[in-house]
Amino acid sequence: MTKKNAIYAQSGGVTAVINASASGVISACRKYSDAIGVVYAAQNGILGVLNEELIDTTTESEANIKKLQQTPGGAFGSCRYKLKSLEDNRYEYERLIQVFKAYDIGYFFYNGGNDSADTCLKVSQIANELGYPIKAIHIPKTIDNDLVITDNCPGFGSVAKYVATSIMEAGIDIKSMALTSTKVFVLEVMGRNAGWIAAACGLASVDNNKPPHIILFPEIIFDEEKFLTKVNETVKNYGFCVIAVSEGIKKANAQSIVVNQNGIDDFGHVQLGGVAPVICSIINNKLGYKYHWAVADYLQRSARHIASKTDLEQAYLVGYCGVEYAIQGYNAVMPAIKRISNTPYRWEIECVDLNLIANHEKFMPRDFITDDGYHITNKCRQYLEPLIFGEDYPEYKNGLPDYVELNNIKVVKKLAPFNFGR
Amino acid sequence: MTKKNAIYAQSGGVTAVINASASGVISACRKYSDAIGVVYAAQNGILGVLNEELIDTTTESEANIKKLQQTPGGAFGSCRYKLKSLEDNRYEYERLIQVFKAYDIGYFFYNGGNDSADTCLKVSQIANELGYPIKAIHIPKTIDNDLVITDNCPGFGSVAKYVATSIMEAGIDIKSMALTSTKVFVLEVMGRNAGWIAAACGLASVDNNKPPHIILFPEIIFDEEKFLTKVNETVKNYGFCVIAVSEGIKKANAQSIVVNQNGIDDFGHVQLGGVAPVICSIINNKLGYKYHWAVADYLQRSARHIASKTDLEQAYLVGYCGVEYAIQGYNAVMPAIKRISNTPYRWEIECVDLNLIANHEKFMPRDFITDDGYHITNKCRQYLEPLIFGEDYPEYKNGLPDYVELNNIKVVKKLAPFNFGR
Repeated sequence: MTKKNAIYAQSGGVTAVINASASGVISACRKYSDAIGVVYAAQNGILGVLNEELIDTTTESEANIKKLQQTPGGAFGSCRYKLKSLEDNRYEYERLIQVFKAYDIGYFFYNGGNDSADTCLKVSQIANELGYPIKAIHIPKTIDNDLVITDNCPGFGSVAKYVATSIMEAGIDIKSMALTSTKVFVLEVMGRNAGWIAAACGLASVDNNKPPHIILFPEIIFDEEKFLTKVNETVKNYGFCVIAVSEGIKKANAQSIVVNQNGIDDFGHVQLGGVAPVICSIINNKLGYKYHWAVADYLQRSARHIASKTDLEQAYLVGYCGVEYAIQGYNAVMPAIKRISNTPYRWEIECVDLNLIANHEKFMPRDFITDDGYHITNKCRQYLEPLIFGEDYPEYKNGLPDYVELNNIKVVKKLAPFNFGR
Repeated sequence: MTKKNAIYAQSGGVTAVINASASGVISACRKYSDAIGVVYAAQNGILGVLNEELIDTTTESEANIKKLQQTPGGAFGSCRYKLKSLEDNRYEYERLIQVFKAYDIGYFFYNGGNDSADTCLKVSQIANELGYPIKAIHIPKTIDNDLVITDNCPGFGSVAKYVATSIMEAGIDIKSMALTSTKVFVLEVMGRNAGWIAAACGLASVDNNKPPHIILFPEIIFDEEKFLTKVNETVKNYGFCVIAVSEGIKKANAQSIVVNQNGIDDFGHVQLGGVAPVICSIINNKLGYKYHWAVADYLQRSARHIASKTDLEQAYLVGYCGVEYAIQGYNAVMPAIKRISNTPYRWEIECVDLNLIANHEKFMPRDFITDDGYHITNKCRQYLEPLIFGEDYPEYKNGLPDYVELNNIKVVKKLAPFNFGR
């Protein structure tokens, strides 16, 4: 086998465990050093390849590569940048191949979600078309848990553990105070179209009386009257009402409850946020209850301090197995998580054709949501629960997590700058 | 010594460690069983005394009383209810004494913040005036860290650890993405008048380049022009800007940036919240940067999963020592935390006259804030850092913290109902 170099890149929204996948990729490449030479990490995802901003990971110690497993965020930088089709922008693909050739790249590991799976697939196809052989492997990552085929997505389990723990804790707080203070609490969580994160809040309801009492999913049309009746009933029954709301909930006309005017991201997604205060003001106007609300935003996806051990193990292994697949000769594939059993929870990694993954989106099945649309079913609980199993705490220094910052030493460029404007 | 019973009650906003104080009080009372008989916990603070809603804690196992140390919120319920002066409402005080007599109460442990210190002091004074001898001890608790005399307040250290960790994690996330995504992130934290919690965010800046880049304190008048210049400089220098903002920041005319219309609490405080989106829209309108914001709200004060071990130990000990002071004959006192040294951090509990505590408020000293008003000084860091030292994780069950719920068996009432309307 001819030895080739590799590029690893992180794409899209980062997570508490995407660096664990980086650790898996780099560790595996080091193990298979007969097949793989230098691992370059592209700075800021695919942009780092286009811009020839390549970090030489060989300068990083074993200890630091291991410490990536306990560090949130994207150690090499990530990006939101979508490659156009070959017809629309052949120049970009030619540039990628130019960089691959210049660095003798035989392996491309792209660590991202739905949009990144599409990018990775395009890279593999185009490399073929342009006659440059490369193994392009997609390493799954998304807190949205919306990739198809794979049982779940690395990154999700840790968000799930964070939101379930947080709403459990806040619920205990509110219960203590409800007689003379806040009656309604709303926690807004991420999830544009798929309600997986909102559903995870439901894990905190360890029995039927426990908060959250109501979950608002993007999959269920928001009906204000029905919702207010449910809130009122809950306050009458329990003295307080705790609500988890997905940022992406929609009214009957498919419109968001609120659209943040901040703009639209590079993938054409409207940037959401701020549903919680809107829900609270609806409740306060109609029912008059005192309320509080929280918006977890980035805290939820960067909360490495309360990562799921299961999630962490899976994130590491999809990285590690992705390298093994590449060495075995696979191209345009993704290591997916296959669930073998619920009790005890057992899983394995399997190799899946990227064509089956890219450009699909997995929503909550209707039977994961209760008939009234306001909570998760036992079936959903059985699915979600194992994903938050286990704790894996980072080391602390002076009371704060001791997260690693890599040297990130970039190679001296060999090529002319890339002209994005062309 | 004649054996007397005790009442313990929790008041005001609950914390991640107020139950550790409860555990300290109950454990000490059990140890000194020659002096103290039954410990009744009033349900929902002083209201539980007025309403004769008394929980018999003797039915709780040692194990559960210990487990209170790892459980956030107020296990017996808390309240926001301010006793009026004796002149304005003598009837309420007479009722307290009536309940004390009915249950042979010799000890009153009131666990709360500033307003509760005042309540506790009044109870001790009034009991004297009405000829019913009682030892009224205030057990300090407030995330606001604004009690005077005591070096710090139990509850604060855990919030400090939570907000510093959270903004550190979010900062790493944003740095990863800033090239093509969010440039400005704002985390809103609690703190009406005192900026202690906002200051704690500054601990995450382990060196000068590290987020948060800007802290907005309620003690410093918000100057929009100057602030926007600082934000712009930060984005130009580092590529992104992370901001911690206290809910209570004020403009030059002493007006809040935003006032939540939800109402005013029982102590006459305006309920704040929602400063973060306002700050973001100011930035976006003037500078055009893409932003995200988070509002931690109750998550910050209930986050037992990342409590400070130092805070936890102090919370337990102020409870425990409060009982010892009572037995030693003290009345109208508070166990305060006295710092002996910074390096190594050493502290002890001392007995302080409640007259020196009640109705005072401790703000951030000006020399704890940098000259430009946007960060903490080294002096502040030296003060804050030890308070977040150490981790003390709760046990987990099925991936979630295993928090205890007590039996909370109430005694059968002996008295006629209390008429609040009188």
